[in-house]
Amino acid sequence: MKLHSLSDIRRVLPSLDLVTLMANAFVAYSEDRARVAPVVELLLDGGDVHVKSGYLVGGEYYVVKVASGFYGNPALGLSSSNGLMLLFRQRTGELAAALFDEGHLTDIRTAAAGAVAAQYLAPPEVRRIAVFGTGIQAREQLAQLRSVTACRQLSVWGRGREQLASYAEAAQELGFTVETSRDGAAVAASADLIVTTTPATEPLFPASVVQPGTHVTAVGSDTPLKQELDPQLLARADVLVADSIAQCRERGEIFRALAAGAINEGEVLELGDVISGRAPGRTTPGQISVADLTGVAAQDIEIARSVHEVLEG
Amino acid sequence: MKLHSLSDIRRVLPSLDLVTLMANAFVAYSEDRARVAPVVELLLDGGDVHVKSGYLVGGEYYVVKVASGFYGNPALGLSSSNGLMLLFRQRTGELAAALFDEGHLTDIRTAAAGAVAAQYLAPPEVRRIAVFGTGIQAREQLAQLRSVTACRQLSVWGRGREQLASYAEAAQELGFTVETSRDGAAVAASADLIVTTTPATEPLFPASVVQPGTHVTAVGSDTPLKQELDPQLLARADVLVADSIAQCRERGEIFRALAAGAINEGEVLELGDVISGRAPGRTTPGQISVADLTGVAAQDIEIARSVHEVLEG
Repeated sequence: MKLHSLSDIRRVLPSLDLVTLMANAFVAYSEDRARVAPVVELLLDGGDVHVKSGYLVGGEYYVVKVASGFYGNPALGLSSSNGLMLLFRQRTGELAAALFDEGHLTDIRTAAAGAVAAQYLAPPEVRRIAVFGTGIQAREQLAQLRSVTACRQLSVWGRGREQLASYAEAAQELGFTVETSRDGAAVAASADLIVTTTPATEPLFPASVVQPGTHVTAVGSDTPLKQELDPQLLARADVLVADSIAQCRERGEIFRALAAGAINEGEVLELGDVISGRAPGRTTPGQISVADLTGVAAQDIEIARSVHEVLEG
Repeated sequence: MKLHSLSDIRRVLPSLDLVTLMANAFVAYSEDRARVAPVVELLLDGGDVHVKSGYLVGGEYYVVKVASGFYGNPALGLSSSNGLMLLFRQRTGELAAALFDEGHLTDIRTAAAGAVAAQYLAPPEVRRIAVFGTGIQAREQLAQLRSVTACRQLSVWGRGREQLASYAEAAQELGFTVETSRDGAAVAASADLIVTTTPATEPLFPASVVQPGTHVTAVGSDTPLKQELDPQLLARADVLVADSIAQCRERGEIFRALAAGAINEGEVLELGDVISGRAPGRTTPGQISVADLTGVAAQDIEIARSVHEVLEG
């Protein structure tokens, strides 16, 4: 059994093709090869904890992931995210490895999923990327997007000037030419690939400003109360994709648009089916597409397995 | 963050008063101070995995426990039980310790719970103990019982002669005078403290053979299909106790007796209430008492915390 620290994990991540890995995870999920237990939630005074577990049929490991958010931690000089992933052998139950990733693999797999959505749904030639939010996920999304698009023109929306300035600096280091703005409608109107990464509880921009030919990926909304997109944008979309239809019924943008009566569940495709070709994705450059990513355990299983395998040599 | 192996854990267990620790855990549970998430179950081809998580309100840690049983492991020279317990800080979500106990702490806390039941429910002077089963749990129950009764007369029931002989040897090393038998009714009739630890799916002995003044603890039945006790024994009991009324509605001996219409839920007391004095236990030496133990997360939380604290010094 091997224990790996975050620095071990960070060291090997650049050697992995995370976008392909996540694409395969979504296909496995949509082909019903993932066996996933219900998510467990523990609520504490200062934070919340999620425990997720599952495996891929025919795979070598099952994975138990513990992830927490404690929002008073930054004031104590600690990361708000914590967690680890445990890999056990499917044949014997033996613990094969513990990855003390402190939540980083969850950030990375979420960002790589955004890149997968862009790879399969964005217009053929992206001219400008818009990112909503300036946090860790906004940075990681940008880093992952570099491998699926040549576009390096970026508009960033955020609430705070300092955070915008700091994000712009990081984006420039990643090779982007950056404009910052606190005007959500203008930022959304300027781009044909939009990624939203905020904890917003109401739409970040009106549906009407989104240009034909735009792809929008929403990753911030992970509870029934959070919302980043106008339900009318989902109604307007020609292609509407969920990472998990089952989960998107219960949380996220699709949940909100269904509740608002703006869409019907029958319109929603699953990302794994788009990747495998079982469902059509974008068919013309002028279509608007929306991907709602809530995160599936198949992603955790696959990123944990591949990090472990590289670390094992 | 500290990692502790099974040998570390075994080394410190003798310094802990496990019976008092488990008694306190049951009181915390019955006083509604335990916050426990639903148990997660993963079913694999060769085994099953349970993930349990929870904390005590006002405590320092929350605990996530992974425990598995892979029944083909002994043929591979591996233990069928595997698992670990993780302690995280309630205030920050930081991992405080990982106890790689390989399922041993679950065995021990279950055995210590049997001793708690005997301490609070057995007749004042036990003359003969009967143990049903010859496995790990049968041995650990006996080891823990030594601290709550002076009785060293033991009858053991088992299906296999070799296992009985091996168990008898271990029991003698623990200071017991041992009789072995494959006649369940005779064994049950001979004792006034009976502990059942088997994976049986039908009653091990008829209710009618149990003598007045006997206490029976059942720990083997942990699924809806398993059953060790005759429902009529529960009907006959003057004192009927569950570690968790909520769990015993769904599995174990009480579940089976409720389903058979032999008892009403209103008759069932909770062990923590008996310990704290909120509910009466045995009031006369001639009563028959039955305790059905299905295991509660408060036990895991408390044994993990105390092992960690001793290891920390």
